[in-house]
Amino acid sequence: MAEKVCGIDFEEYLEKAESFHGTAAPGMIAGAYMIDYATSLLPQGDLYDVVCESGHCLPDAVQLLTPCTVGNGWLRIVPTTRYALTIYNKYNGEGVRVFIDHEKIEKYTAARSWFYRDIPKEQQSLEDIIHDLRRAGHDLYGVQRVVVKIQHPHNENERHAESKICSGCREVFKSMGEQLCPACSGAVYYEQMKPDTA
Amino acid sequence: MAEKVCGIDFEEYLEKAESFHGTAAPGMIAGAYMIDYATSLLPQGDLYDVVCESGHCLPDAVQLLTPCTVGNGWLRIVPTTRYALTIYNKYNGEGVRVFIDHEKIEKYTAARSWFYRDIPKEQQSLEDIIHDLRRAGHDLYGVQRVVVKIQHPHNENERHAESKICSGCREVFKSMGEQLCPACSGAVYYEQMKPDTA
Repeated sequence: MAEKVCGIDFEEYLEKAESFHGTAAPGMIAGAYMIDYATSLLPQGDLYDVVCESGHCLPDAVQLLTPCTVGNGWLRIVPTTRYALTIYNKYNGEGVRVFIDHEKIEKYTAARSWFYRDIPKEQQSLEDIIHDLRRAGHDLYGVQRVVVKIQHPHNENERHAESKICSGCREVFKSMGEQLCPACSGAVYYEQMKPDTA
Repeated sequence: MAEKVCGIDFEEYLEKAESFHGTAAPGMIAGAYMIDYATSLLPQGDLYDVVCESGHCLPDAVQLLTPCTVGNGWLRIVPTTRYALTIYNKYNGEGVRVFIDHEKIEKYTAARSWFYRDIPKEQQSLEDIIHDLRRAGHDLYGVQRVVVKIQHPHNENERHAESKICSGCREVFKSMGEQLCPACSGAVYYEQMKPDTA
């Protein structure tokens, strides 16, 4: 059983996961081993970005265990709905993609039930799942060497965007020539209750 | 000058911001005051979700200062390119939206230059910007009472999705009837270097 993951004590990681994520959920544990696996295959000292293919738990494991966060732009979510992540050199895109291998997970009954959600969550034992994930270590995952083809998330289009006051909401947005911000163009997610006051 | 923000010492927050985000960037400071402002207008003890309208810095301030993270699904990014965030009751959607008010920021020269990026970053003084943001406190921001209309990010479509092995990559994905995962349907972000091996 691996006692450390990504260089820190497993128990300490559990505490960090509870504090940051709310619970030491299975995805936080699997994520830690996926990051551990990927980084073990990459040169130390390079600067990396990360892509998570699921928004469930994985981004939080990345944010706890690497310098990459959503807000600093080094972590990006590309939702393919596969349980996978890629850690790659931010300059040349070369990296390692780690995913849950459905053949390998077959022999870990509790981890398998978590992964497929084929029995109700209330009937799953979190303790058994974590035991499986620890016991498995890197063994649950497949790896691929990849070259990532996307730009740094904060760079796309932004170099040419101009700060402009939206002719709808009168707030400042990043315009590529448009007069209306994306919210006033239809991407609004709320209704205002009392305009201009709180 | 506000010595605390979101209930913690400002200097302590700066250290947390550096540790998590990499730097105590202006957006991390503005974000903290925006969260502080919004929560001061909301009942204590309710359970909240957050929407950030920019992926720059704001999500990291939220993740440091609230229980909401990207990976636990309580924080969502709706990129309108406006510098704004909304904190809202996760059950009824009622909340407060806080945004940078372009009229109010006019009198804060350093903060204004940061916001509009109208002088090169190298010529801006981080110290002056932070001084402006602290001096301003809540004064830089507008607020709106809103009702948020989006679903919890992790719930959309997922209740009816089935775990299926993709007929392309042979990995497990969440299918709504499709045989190919989103990556194999075109949303792939990488090229594989050496198939099936690392």
